[in-house]
Amino acid sequence: MSGDRSIRTANGVSHLKRSVMRDLLKLAVDPDIISLAGGLPAAETLPVEAFGECLEAVLARDGAASLQYSPPFAPLRAWIAEHMRGRGAACSPEQVFITNGAQQGLAIISRMLLDPGEPAVIENIAFTGIQQVTAGRGADVRTVNVDPALGVDVSSLEKAFQLEPRPKMAVMVPNFHNPLSATMPAEARQTAAELAARFQVPIVEDDPYGMLRFEGEAIPPIKAYDQDDFVFYLGSFSKMLAPGLRLGWIVAPESMMPQITVVRESMDLESSTLIQRVVHEFIRRGHLQVHLNEMNALHKTRRDRLVAALKSEFTTGEHWTEPQGGLFVWLTLAEGIDSWALFEAALAKKVAFIPGEAFAVEGGHKNCVRLSFGNVRTEMIDLGVARLAQAVREGALAR
Amino acid sequence: MSGDRSIRTANGVSHLKRSVMRDLLKLAVDPDIISLAGGLPAAETLPVEAFGECLEAVLARDGAASLQYSPPFAPLRAWIAEHMRGRGAACSPEQVFITNGAQQGLAIISRMLLDPGEPAVIENIAFTGIQQVTAGRGADVRTVNVDPALGVDVSSLEKAFQLEPRPKMAVMVPNFHNPLSATMPAEARQTAAELAARFQVPIVEDDPYGMLRFEGEAIPPIKAYDQDDFVFYLGSFSKMLAPGLRLGWIVAPESMMPQITVVRESMDLESSTLIQRVVHEFIRRGHLQVHLNEMNALHKTRRDRLVAALKSEFTTGEHWTEPQGGLFVWLTLAEGIDSWALFEAALAKKVAFIPGEAFAVEGGHKNCVRLSFGNVRTEMIDLGVARLAQAVREGALAR
Repeated sequence: MSGDRSIRTANGVSHLKRSVMRDLLKLAVDPDIISLAGGLPAAETLPVEAFGECLEAVLARDGAASLQYSPPFAPLRAWIAEHMRGRGAACSPEQVFITNGAQQGLAIISRMLLDPGEPAVIENIAFTGIQQVTAGRGADVRTVNVDPALGVDVSSLEKAFQLEPRPKMAVMVPNFHNPLSATMPAEARQTAAELAARFQVPIVEDDPYGMLRFEGEAIPPIKAYDQDDFVFYLGSFSKMLAPGLRLGWIVAPESMMPQITVVRESMDLESSTLIQRVVHEFIRRGHLQVHLNEMNALHKTRRDRLVAALKSEFTTGEHWTEPQGGLFVWLTLAEGIDSWALFEAALAKKVAFIPGEAFAVEGGHKNCVRLSFGNVRTEMIDLGVARLAQAVREGALAR
Repeated sequence: MSGDRSIRTANGVSHLKRSVMRDLLKLAVDPDIISLAGGLPAAETLPVEAFGECLEAVLARDGAASLQYSPPFAPLRAWIAEHMRGRGAACSPEQVFITNGAQQGLAIISRMLLDPGEPAVIENIAFTGIQQVTAGRGADVRTVNVDPALGVDVSSLEKAFQLEPRPKMAVMVPNFHNPLSATMPAEARQTAAELAARFQVPIVEDDPYGMLRFEGEAIPPIKAYDQDDFVFYLGSFSKMLAPGLRLGWIVAPESMMPQITVVRESMDLESSTLIQRVVHEFIRRGHLQVHLNEMNALHKTRRDRLVAALKSEFTTGEHWTEPQGGLFVWLTLAEGIDSWALFEAALAKKVAFIPGEAFAVEGGHKNCVRLSFGNVRTEMIDLGVARLAQAVREGALAR
């Protein structure tokens, strides 16, 4: 035995891109920093009291069963099936698989569908977690164009599906896309579902933000148009209830449940039965709708404030999305601005955001930034945007 | 587009062996069945009340922070580092990575170390979850002999490490092994750690049962003998506190934390901050030691009762382990007995166990069964073993 005495890691690990966002978020813990960075829902409306009452009730009612190993909590699966029906995508409780959130759902489906080297389609601007999972499986990643307002371009999707070898899956976020805030129109969703069936390429519909609409009419999920069972739907309680719970779900063809189960067992066995029971109790008592109303109202106030501040500060051709829900605004600055450099300058002025390039699968979009209005105190938004605009102006002068 | 209109799954998924145990457990939900099957700790001592108090206290103290996205809870990492020091395997909080349990720890480390097709060493009789993870990574699985009383045979381990290509990792359960209940002596642990360093093959020490000792002296973990940072230690709160929480940890070289973090992010982002905070509060209030004392005392009573019943019922050369902790007894019946057939016959008599072959990586061990004494009511053990013995006798007559 000789040579370098170190642990040899898998080649595949080098494919895994460290989440820039999560690194950046660590920089932004200074309480004086106005953070428009993290994709967090409003802390003010997290339902601490109601959740505590539900915890107490569940422990009193279920006792040791709520702390023991357990199969998925059947009443929660039943409620999720009802919830999906209410959103236009009816399914049976047997089609609902409980996860620790949409990220785990994506990891499970990717593991089930993708062998290393096989093609997978993702949006050309995508949440880092989606890039991590597909790259981490060693996928041959193809991109599809996504419009900042209208989401996936279905003609681009059709082209990606036509290429041989055919992709094994396509991931998209149809509601209040992270980071673009784009929302796909109903017609595009229907077309996407039809393309999935026609080309036999499963769509993974990643929908953590669907219930975060504060304005306009809800649009049924892609899954609602899925006549041929080629859409996997990923739900999450992280944004619609609380991120600290780690709970979500997959809707999948019932025939695939055994494979989904075995893939998930190999990852971490099962989800916390305590958390499943408490979330169900929270819903059963009617708290969820109250919470969504409160949270979304606050988010709307913050979006209004953010958009007003952008209008006031950025008057030289910059543009931004004005979403009807979710957590994000996508701001496009003048060509030539490097938002990594801007990030440093802004941080010095005590305001944080995520540089757009972090989401750009094929690079570029350096002049864009993601602003999150979910968890910034409303009265700090004007100051935050003023600081950002000042950093932009000073950067322009320095160039 | 023509042919079979179905979703094409990854080739790798066929490597994943469905957990026989979890399927069998579903058969055993009939409340009249005396179950010696599931590897569950005693439900009677799960600390429902104390845990409820801690939940209330954490929500009152931390409020929204306990429901929001969050970095790993620093006081819990600090406690785990202290706990490891107390067990003879000192480490820094920076070496502690929070997981959803030992299974996730194994999945993370396997993902980090193993590329498909590379060799990994596991025990020739091993928990199904270990088989699922290594096979699921597409590993070239090599086995090492494990003795029902003394655990991994280190001369067999040395041979496995000598084979080229060198293995990328070796997984072992040194304390109260599942299903054998074997516990490796200190000398074997030291030798294993030395072999890991000498051959530069990382050992993954999977230790969910280490704190479930009810008799005899604790033996330091393999990690305690790890001079050269070639041992990854996997801890779990599932058995030492409660399975329904889904919380555990990895101890790893600090230099590998960035890679561990990115692998874990790609799986499910992070662990529940609420659960982390509550577990820490439970420990801070001194409940953990009280709980361990109560649970282990009850487990000892049940082991005593089980061993006494085996002595009384099996008098024709059958033999079994008599562990000083953990949850399992490994019963070896007469050669020629098929414990799958016995399982059916026993279930008809309303007693359940796990057939030994389910754990046998290379098959065989058909005449063995795993009996779990953790979560069976003490007063039912005699009847359960009597039913099992009757099923064995009737099976022998029928052959």
